[in-house]
Amino acid sequence: MKRSLSGIKSTGIPHLGNYLGMIRPAIDLQDDYEAFYFVAEFHALTTERDPAAMRESTRMITAAFLAFGLDPERAAFFRQSSIPEVTELAWLLSCVTNMGVLERAHAYKAAKDAGVANHLNHGVFSYPVLMAADILIYDSDVVPVGQDQIQHLEMTRLMARHFNNTFGGDYLKLPEPMVREDVATVPGLDGRKMSKSYGNLIEPLTAPKKLRKQVMKIVTAPTPIEEPLDWESCNVFALYKLFSTSEEQAEMRANYARPDFGFGHAKQALFEKMNAHFEPFREKYDALLADTDTLEDVLERGAQRVRPVVGEVMERVRSATGLGRG
Amino acid sequence: MKRSLSGIKSTGIPHLGNYLGMIRPAIDLQDDYEAFYFVAEFHALTTERDPAAMRESTRMITAAFLAFGLDPERAAFFRQSSIPEVTELAWLLSCVTNMGVLERAHAYKAAKDAGVANHLNHGVFSYPVLMAADILIYDSDVVPVGQDQIQHLEMTRLMARHFNNTFGGDYLKLPEPMVREDVATVPGLDGRKMSKSYGNLIEPLTAPKKLRKQVMKIVTAPTPIEEPLDWESCNVFALYKLFSTSEEQAEMRANYARPDFGFGHAKQALFEKMNAHFEPFREKYDALLADTDTLEDVLERGAQRVRPVVGEVMERVRSATGLGRG
Repeated sequence: MKRSLSGIKSTGIPHLGNYLGMIRPAIDLQDDYEAFYFVAEFHALTTERDPAAMRESTRMITAAFLAFGLDPERAAFFRQSSIPEVTELAWLLSCVTNMGVLERAHAYKAAKDAGVANHLNHGVFSYPVLMAADILIYDSDVVPVGQDQIQHLEMTRLMARHFNNTFGGDYLKLPEPMVREDVATVPGLDGRKMSKSYGNLIEPLTAPKKLRKQVMKIVTAPTPIEEPLDWESCNVFALYKLFSTSEEQAEMRANYARPDFGFGHAKQALFEKMNAHFEPFREKYDALLADTDTLEDVLERGAQRVRPVVGEVMERVRSATGLGRG
Repeated sequence: MKRSLSGIKSTGIPHLGNYLGMIRPAIDLQDDYEAFYFVAEFHALTTERDPAAMRESTRMITAAFLAFGLDPERAAFFRQSSIPEVTELAWLLSCVTNMGVLERAHAYKAAKDAGVANHLNHGVFSYPVLMAADILIYDSDVVPVGQDQIQHLEMTRLMARHFNNTFGGDYLKLPEPMVREDVATVPGLDGRKMSKSYGNLIEPLTAPKKLRKQVMKIVTAPTPIEEPLDWESCNVFALYKLFSTSEEQAEMRANYARPDFGFGHAKQALFEKMNAHFEPFREKYDALLADTDTLEDVLERGAQRVRPVVGEVMERVRSATGLGRG
C-alpha cells in the first residue's frame, strides 16, 4: 500500500472552505493509502506567537478530522513537533540546496518584489526546506497538492535528488504529486472565495445559533420586491447546491421564482440544510474537544506509528553524511 | 561555576596554528568553567561530502583534545549530532529572526558582494542561526570568540532577546563573549599566517620524519655565506621562540651570528625542540586514535552529561511556543 502524506495547517475551527477543499479530500486518502497526517506546528510558528492558541488550534483540527471520519486505527494523525527529526533533516537538505533555489520560491519572490523581504522572518524563507523534510522523512509516495503548491513539491524532489547525487545513493525517496482537480471554489459570505483573510466565513461546526447568524449575513443582490430572485447569481443558492440533491435544487429554483419567496427564506432553507448535514459531526466535534485525553491519545499513537519509518530514514541519511558514530 | 561553550571545527590532524590559537586556550577553560565542547559536524556538512572523512576527522580532533590534556571527568566533549535538538531550536529562532539580520552576516555579505550568493548553499546562509542554537541550548554563560566571531555572538544575543521578547519570558540565557586577545599569529612555512588554505602547515602530531620534512621546508632569506643570519626576520627563529626559554633564545641568537651556523642548523634545532615538546602528546594521540572505543566512550559520556541541560532548555522553549501537548 502506498503512503500518502498530508501536512495540516490548523487555523482554529474549520470553515466550509477548509472542509470541502482540504479536510474531506484529505480524509478520503485513508481508503486507498497508508495515510500520514501531521499538524504543522513548526510552520505555524512563522506567524503564531500565542502558545495557548497554538495548542488549542492543534486540538481543534484533530477533533475536526476525527469528527469528519478520520480513522485512527488505519491512519496516523500526529503533531509535527512529535517528530523533531524533521528539523535535523531540514538542516541536511539545507547543506545541498543553493540559495538560488529558495529565492525562486513564489512566496519569497512576491515579498521581495514588494520590497519587504528583509522583514520576513527566516522561517518564512526556509519554509520550503522544512516542508521537503516533512515529506521526505516519511518515505512518502504521494503528496496531495493544490495548484499553488506544485512548486513546493518540485523543490522537494530537487532537494532529494541533490542529496542522493551528492552522497551517492538512493537515500531519499522521490515523492509524486497528486494534483487535486481544483475543487469548485467555495464562495464566502460576500461571494468571494471563502477565506479567513476576507472575514467571510461560514463555520459549520459552530453552534447552530451562530451558524444561522453567519448564513443570514450572506450578501444578496438588491432585487425590487415585484421581481423574481435570480438563483443563478445567488450566493445562497450556490451554497445550497453543495448540500442538496438535484430534486431539492429544482424545488429551490422554483421557490426563487415565487413572488412571496424572499432571500430570508432561502437563507433559512440553507441554514436548515447545512445544520442537518453537520449536526452529527458537530456533536462528535464538541465531545472530542472536551475530551483532551482522547485527542492526545490519538496524536501520541499517530506519532508512535510513524516513528519506525522516521528511524529508518534518519539512519540512512546520518550514515550517508557521516554523522554520529557510524 | 559558570559554563563555557566551545564549538570545535575539525579539519583533520591539527596544525601548530590550531594548537596554539584554539586547542590550547580552549582546553584551559576547563580549569575555571564547566566546559562544554562540541565537534561541529552539522556545520562541517556545509562543505564536507565524504562520510568517512567526517567520522575520521571527528575522532582526530577528539584524540587531539584528549592528548593535549582535556579531562573528560571535568569537561564534556561530544558530537553536535548527539544533540539534534539544536536543529529544532534553530527553527524556533528562525521564526523570530528577520532575513535582514542574516543578510548582514559578514560571510554572506562578502559572497553577495562577489556576486556568488546564489551559489552558496542554504546551510552557509543559515549558519548563524544554528550557531546561536548551539550556544543557547546549553544555557551557556560565556563563549570564547576571536575578533572575527564577535558578530556571531552579537547575533546570538539578538536572537535570544527577540525570542524572549516575542514569547514574553526569560526563556533563553544571553551569553557573554569572552574575546580572546589575539594570540600571536603563528607563522606558516612561508611566513604567512599558518592556514590550511595556504598549504603552509606544520603538524606537530605527525610522525617525526614528516615533521622534520615540514620544518626543513620553512622559507628563509637568501643570505650570502659570509654574512651572519638575521634572526629578527627569520621564520625559523619565530617558531623556535614559541617552544624555548629566554636563555635558549639568547643562545640561539648567538648561534645565528656564528659564521659556521646555517639555516639548516637552525631548522634542526627547531625540529628537535618541537619534537621533544610534542612527543608525549603524539604518543597519546596515536594510542587514542587506534582506540575507537575509548574515543566513542568519551564522546558518548559527554553527550550524556549535557543532555539534562538540553532537556530543560527545550522544555522551556517548547512550552513558550506552544509546541507539543503542554
